[in-house]
Amino acid sequence: MQHVGPSSRSQVPPFTVMTVLARVAELRAAGREVISLCAGEPSQGAPTPVRRRMAELMTEPIPLGYSETFGIRPLRERLAGHYARWYGLEVDPARIAITTGSSGAFLHTFLAAFDPGDRVLLARPGYPAYRNILASLGCTVVELDCGPELRFQPSVDQLDRALADGPVTGLVLASPANPTGTMIDDDQLAALAGWCRDHEVRLVSDEIYHGISYTGSVGSCALAHDQQSVIVSSFSKYWGMTGWRLGWTVLPEDLVPGFDALAGNIALCPPVPAQHAALEAFTEDAYAEADAAVAGYGEARQLILDAVGDLGWSGLAPVDGAFYVYASIADQLGTRYRTSAHWAAALLDDQGVAVTPGLDFDGVHGDSWIRLSLAAGPAAVAEAVDRILTFQRQGR
Amino acid sequence: MQHVGPSSRSQVPPFTVMTVLARVAELRAAGREVISLCAGEPSQGAPTPVRRRMAELMTEPIPLGYSETFGIRPLRERLAGHYARWYGLEVDPARIAITTGSSGAFLHTFLAAFDPGDRVLLARPGYPAYRNILASLGCTVVELDCGPELRFQPSVDQLDRALADGPVTGLVLASPANPTGTMIDDDQLAALAGWCRDHEVRLVSDEIYHGISYTGSVGSCALAHDQQSVIVSSFSKYWGMTGWRLGWTVLPEDLVPGFDALAGNIALCPPVPAQHAALEAFTEDAYAEADAAVAGYGEARQLILDAVGDLGWSGLAPVDGAFYVYASIADQLGTRYRTSAHWAAALLDDQGVAVTPGLDFDGVHGDSWIRLSLAAGPAAVAEAVDRILTFQRQGR
Repeated sequence: MQHVGPSSRSQVPPFTVMTVLARVAELRAAGREVISLCAGEPSQGAPTPVRRRMAELMTEPIPLGYSETFGIRPLRERLAGHYARWYGLEVDPARIAITTGSSGAFLHTFLAAFDPGDRVLLARPGYPAYRNILASLGCTVVELDCGPELRFQPSVDQLDRALADGPVTGLVLASPANPTGTMIDDDQLAALAGWCRDHEVRLVSDEIYHGISYTGSVGSCALAHDQQSVIVSSFSKYWGMTGWRLGWTVLPEDLVPGFDALAGNIALCPPVPAQHAALEAFTEDAYAEADAAVAGYGEARQLILDAVGDLGWSGLAPVDGAFYVYASIADQLGTRYRTSAHWAAALLDDQGVAVTPGLDFDGVHGDSWIRLSLAAGPAAVAEAVDRILTFQRQGR
Repeated sequence: MQHVGPSSRSQVPPFTVMTVLARVAELRAAGREVISLCAGEPSQGAPTPVRRRMAELMTEPIPLGYSETFGIRPLRERLAGHYARWYGLEVDPARIAITTGSSGAFLHTFLAAFDPGDRVLLARPGYPAYRNILASLGCTVVELDCGPELRFQPSVDQLDRALADGPVTGLVLASPANPTGTMIDDDQLAALAGWCRDHEVRLVSDEIYHGISYTGSVGSCALAHDQQSVIVSSFSKYWGMTGWRLGWTVLPEDLVPGFDALAGNIALCPPVPAQHAALEAFTEDAYAEADAAVAGYGEARQLILDAVGDLGWSGLAPVDGAFYVYASIADQLGTRYRTSAHWAAALLDDQGVAVTPGLDFDGVHGDSWIRLSLAAGPAAVAEAVDRILTFQRQGR
């Protein structure tokens, strides 16, 4: 007898990066030394005060059972303080929900704000999980083709055209963006958020890379322009706590009850020991450690920007923030390597340097693009650039 | 201008227990001493070896970034060893996915196995999150009315009748069950699993309370009867790690790719420091600590069973396992307290004892039932029984 098989909605496109990561693991298992510029995870780990507090918690008679669905109150209060510190914004802790990474924030936000069939706009290239989560929840994803001429971010014109094609329920913005690093400046954010307000479209603003920027601004917060927007962020990037799975969202009041009910059923609560330890992320020492890591990404960024001429790459995104460089390698492709996936596979086997092919981020144009992560730090990136130059010279 | 409001699917019924918990917090903030028999969380916390390892991890230069979506390989291998130890079953670690609590396992399983509109069968009374997650994902929940005469578990007759009403895609079983503690014995499980195999219905077996039982058996694993079933479990209950948000699932091969793709997009990976620490849950010391906690629940259970005659409760579930007592207080209701929710509110205010009204678990009959948790241990339960007896005498 055959069982009913997998659901239709589980037919999510595979990540091409997984092929690269599997090959990295194979090579390393075989004793090869590999520089991985694939992953978006800081190498320094959690700030010292956070790790110290976590160790203490393990020896204290605290049961660390479930927390409130929205997380422990003191952490929500620290986050409110963080919004005052970084943006001068006053946020009621009652609107802040701690989540299991920004992943949990996206899932519950999308469920709370959008119904099946709702049309939601996204920039392409963009973080593939937005598209895949929305699709698995029955939403209709409308991709906005945002090339270098738009600095890889949506324009009001594009929003108008999407609306002319049919009703729009949501817009997801990311600044600094993954994979491009492009930031939306305050004027552009005001225009995009104003469009959302005027057209009753829910703005979901991914601000997970705030604080990692090279422009002097931590990033513009959408709350300053649209109190009905949803802000998503995380301890994973600026504070380097990727594996801890701790994020948060700032919710508009109308979404608080639905988000609470959904998150209470679906997740119960975010990880509790991590919540208590994360209180220490808002100490001056922890901010200083995080800022030092950002300075390291900045050095790595400059190394790449200086090498781009030699590398012969084009279309380079500005890398205002985040820790990615997204570039077209069209001039390196041809009969030998047809796509950036082939090129990346060969680079990995030949030189032991892993980069992410662009197809994960852009299903239309990504075949000739790659993403490099700066999170491995300047020494690894400098060595990788040398090896890529060697690889490209051999390819000619 | 008004924004589009919350989604229809976020209109999840509220938990009545939240009203109780909010009142507990109010009373405690006002200096009242409250015995909470509400929550399903062990009071002892994580095993000592797990806590010790977590503290060590915080001082080691391990970045603790993202893990594989299915979790670190050594933990999946330890779990395979656990299935051999407890059930004599051989499980390929490739089929084991570590998840963010059993919550993550349910979410991704339901998404991977069921499409919108699919009919999924559940026992009533039952854990409300099954119903609410399935509903928010567009599935049609069919509740099977399982009273004391069925020991609160579905019968094959019920499954036949549900199938006569329309196609059935899934069945969720829980043994030991929340809120009743009833276990499905091996013969009954074989019959139910056989029915699922014969009718191409996906069995999802919630085994989160395995190991917490008073029958001499840790529980029967559905894998022994149906290799196409999905097993869901967790470190939260037997090992007392509720707040850590670490669970797992054993997947049939056909669901592995879809589950992986969905979990990779929706959750990325389960909490990583907790995964490394949880390796120590499979040491003899950790098993011994967990078993000692179970012995404590057993004492608390006996206290309640001995007091039931004096309490005048009826319909009592057998409490084969888990740490809940589910009972009808119909004889205590009337003009003074119309429902178990009113009764529970009065008990809390009068005697400082918090219990969970049955409505969360059974929307049809739950109004005259309550659930008590034994997880607070025998001393707290003994004191609570005295106070409840006092409360009931006053009520007459």
